[in-house]
Amino acid sequence: MDDITERHNAKMKKIKAARDKMMETKTEEKGLIMVHTGPGKGKSSSGFGMIMRCISHGIPCAVVQFIKGNWDTGEKTFLRDRFPDECRFFVSGEGFTWETQDRDRDIMAAKKGWEIAKEQILDDEVDFVLLDEINIALRYDYLDIDEVVDFLLHQKPRMTHVVLTGRNAKPELIEAADLVTEMSLVKHPFKDGVKAQKGVEF
Amino acid sequence: MDDITERHNAKMKKIKAARDKMMETKTEEKGLIMVHTGPGKGKSSSGFGMIMRCISHGIPCAVVQFIKGNWDTGEKTFLRDRFPDECRFFVSGEGFTWETQDRDRDIMAAKKGWEIAKEQILDDEVDFVLLDEINIALRYDYLDIDEVVDFLLHQKPRMTHVVLTGRNAKPELIEAADLVTEMSLVKHPFKDGVKAQKGVEF
Repeated sequence: MDDITERHNAKMKKIKAARDKMMETKTEEKGLIMVHTGPGKGKSSSGFGMIMRCISHGIPCAVVQFIKGNWDTGEKTFLRDRFPDECRFFVSGEGFTWETQDRDRDIMAAKKGWEIAKEQILDDEVDFVLLDEINIALRYDYLDIDEVVDFLLHQKPRMTHVVLTGRNAKPELIEAADLVTEMSLVKHPFKDGVKAQKGVEF
Repeated sequence: MDDITERHNAKMKKIKAARDKMMETKTEEKGLIMVHTGPGKGKSSSGFGMIMRCISHGIPCAVVQFIKGNWDTGEKTFLRDRFPDECRFFVSGEGFTWETQDRDRDIMAAKKGWEIAKEQILDDEVDFVLLDEINIALRYDYLDIDEVVDFLLHQKPRMTHVVLTGRNAKPELIEAADLVTEMSLVKHPFKDGVKAQKGVEF
């Protein structure tokens, strides 16, 4: 074994010991309130990656899409066509708000979505709920942030996971959440004239 | 219509016009080099969310997992069991490097993974390739960053998308990429003693 390999292996052994010790303290299981926000990519797609994991593990799950309603997204077709029993899929909203240009209709759609979301979160047969793009509805005050946070903190069943996605998450939601990830944009090809593409963006 | 609604609708109309104009300039389609990095969650799971979109759109895809080799991840079981034709799944590596504590074996596994990765990227029948956790192998110099970047820039077929995940992406890779997202950790429940849970972390 050469020097660099020996040093590396010793270092890795130390890291493993520290990690094992740290992981011993991680014993609690509980349903998490998770937020994916920020201007970067990956907020919705990582939510759907978790849905894939849930289906694989036999964890019953549900999706409520708040904003991308009338888009033919890959995830909607995929889950509706192939996993209708494993994952319930609801759509509320009719595209981004600058597409509809009708605030009253947007508010109605958001409120309808939130009613469905509450039902799914409270449902004993659902353990993981993805509220896709709900942050947009909260940002424009289509939904009352205090009501949403209060429900998540006090009525969500203890073991149910809820993921809330969308940019500009409200500070109240970030405060209430267990796990918050900010997706930042380091580089984006839109700037160079590349359009949204299948598989990547939708 | 009340004042606030009228103002809102006018504002949304203006945003839509600006957006439509902007989108008109986005006409190019090309295979992208995409990087998901940073200490936050969602780097791998958003890659798998994109794989879900690809399968749904009929885009043939492949995954090479560099580091999480011996974990029974939900995504591995899901794709291997249910979509063996739609998504090729390769594993190279035997767990995080602090688990194996054997640098030579890690290097061999990484190099084998990279050979598979190149084959898949060059394959005419594959249009989307996810190189999961390759950044870890690059960070420890198990793979040569110059060789990887050179291959991506000069040998990758023009229309093939490649996603590279893992924290601590090398500056050379960020420079070469079309789209880079940094996942930042705003809050993490590990700090409060909550352990990694099915569906969420794997």
